[in-house]
Amino acid sequence: MIDRLINQIETKENPTVVGLDPRLDMIPTFIKEEAYEKWGKTPKAVAEAFLKFNKTIIDEIYDFVPAVKPQVAMYEQFGPEGIQAYIDTIKYAKEKGLIIIGDVKRSDIASTAQAYADGHIGRVKVEDESFEVYHEDSITLNPYLGYDSIEPYIKHCKDYDKGLFILVKTSNPNSGEIQDLEVGKEKLYERVGKLVSNWGEEVMGKRGYSHVGAVVGATHPEQAKRLRELMPHTFFLVPGYGAQGGTAKDLAVCFDKNGLGAIVNSSRGIIGAYKLEKYKKDFTEKEFALASKQAVLDMKKDLQGALA
Amino acid sequence: MIDRLINQIETKENPTVVGLDPRLDMIPTFIKEEAYEKWGKTPKAVAEAFLKFNKTIIDEIYDFVPAVKPQVAMYEQFGPEGIQAYIDTIKYAKEKGLIIIGDVKRSDIASTAQAYADGHIGRVKVEDESFEVYHEDSITLNPYLGYDSIEPYIKHCKDYDKGLFILVKTSNPNSGEIQDLEVGKEKLYERVGKLVSNWGEEVMGKRGYSHVGAVVGATHPEQAKRLRELMPHTFFLVPGYGAQGGTAKDLAVCFDKNGLGAIVNSSRGIIGAYKLEKYKKDFTEKEFALASKQAVLDMKKDLQGALA
Repeated sequence: MIDRLINQIETKENPTVVGLDPRLDMIPTFIKEEAYEKWGKTPKAVAEAFLKFNKTIIDEIYDFVPAVKPQVAMYEQFGPEGIQAYIDTIKYAKEKGLIIIGDVKRSDIASTAQAYADGHIGRVKVEDESFEVYHEDSITLNPYLGYDSIEPYIKHCKDYDKGLFILVKTSNPNSGEIQDLEVGKEKLYERVGKLVSNWGEEVMGKRGYSHVGAVVGATHPEQAKRLRELMPHTFFLVPGYGAQGGTAKDLAVCFDKNGLGAIVNSSRGIIGAYKLEKYKKDFTEKEFALASKQAVLDMKKDLQGALA
Repeated sequence: MIDRLINQIETKENPTVVGLDPRLDMIPTFIKEEAYEKWGKTPKAVAEAFLKFNKTIIDEIYDFVPAVKPQVAMYEQFGPEGIQAYIDTIKYAKEKGLIIIGDVKRSDIASTAQAYADGHIGRVKVEDESFEVYHEDSITLNPYLGYDSIEPYIKHCKDYDKGLFILVKTSNPNSGEIQDLEVGKEKLYERVGKLVSNWGEEVMGKRGYSHVGAVVGATHPEQAKRLRELMPHTFFLVPGYGAQGGTAKDLAVCFDKNGLGAIVNSSRGIIGAYKLEKYKKDFTEKEFALASKQAVLDMKKDLQGALA
């Protein structure tokens, strides 16, 4: 997976991943009305509206970004129909050549971890038949339970050419409450970073990075810099750009000297661009996906400037 | 939620929660064959078989246990149809008066945490309509991201009379890798235990326990004992009994002097009882749910013995 991701980043000349985290207040009225007319104001209507919204944006951006990151919670909250929209979004994005990072942040052990691994990045078996269910290329995970909660996924990285991004240092205001605790002479997130780096050693790709990556927030540049040093072979998924306050300059420390080693997420700033002051004057609601495309191009330029 | 759970534990005189974690190799052949005949060897057939299996067990045990804990991964891996079976299992168990602990171990921040909270223990809004989607009474969560990843759920505990069980010390072999790290003069799990206890102070029930509980594994009795002292107002959900090696004597330390304060999970040992040496001679495959009932009664006796 990681080699495919790096190739895509080089081809598109853009280390941006678009977070497909739709919310009802972000969906243009004409899409919502059409869905409500068919299904009433129901979870099914929301699921259909989300899928339409996502597909329209994907059509405009797939030439300019390497990957998308759907946030499963936004779909899961609407039940089975929401989950179907999550899966259909992923399948559509894959048809367009995009790499999928499923933002699921699962954490469990033993046969439960195996079940998540099989469903999301492996295959589930029904007697002599097997099925790919969620179709992600990689997913995010939470490390709190230790190596045996990660192991089944690592095996699938090998067997199915998949990837992982494990939470190390998150971008939220209270992330330090546990992650910044002092463990001996280092912070907990540094210790977790080393563990994640070790776990990834057995599944190295061909471009110097492991299939096991890390989530490192853009809102803590000094900490990200330290983690880049500690984890030279770990690719970073960087949330927190834009809406959460992280700037391109802040997150430049996440990249290596070749301008690789990280992919930066933006969600609302891209999929909700048509609602932002910056784009409102140039794009109508009907042109929401064109606004997203412009936001992608602006973000690419912003990142390239900071990495130059 | 926590008061309802305590009342149920007292009424049934049993601090056992049955883990509804079905796996295909646990489902009796006649249930599987019936489902395959209708739907082929597909995720839909598995979902139907899981639901039938769960309902039959629930029918036999609901008089003797206070709660069930479906593990969402077992259903989620089979996609939307699996999720539907998860929801239908929950609705059926609630009709029988059982308290539901949804074992989802989610971890995320901001609007994403809000989405999980709304879907699982709140209501999702579609304009002026709102829907209860997953119907759990309580869910499990992972604390690694800090308080702002928990806050939206705590608000729902107040607004919808719901509960939480937050991972503190898990039962798996590698749980110590991160959870047992030394933080100053204490272990990380002790620090996390104190945090969880503090987070729970604002949502106290009427029986001395908070709606915010903790997951504390039965496989580490000394650590559980220490946590019981540190968290006197926190109810424990205790995994690891039976299949994972924890004994009733080990986990007695999780209870308070009144024999309350904890609920002990068993999954395979109950729902897969008919496959165990101990029950195989007395129950046929067709009588799998009667074997589950017997296993519940045996576990109740075992726990009562250790608590006496």
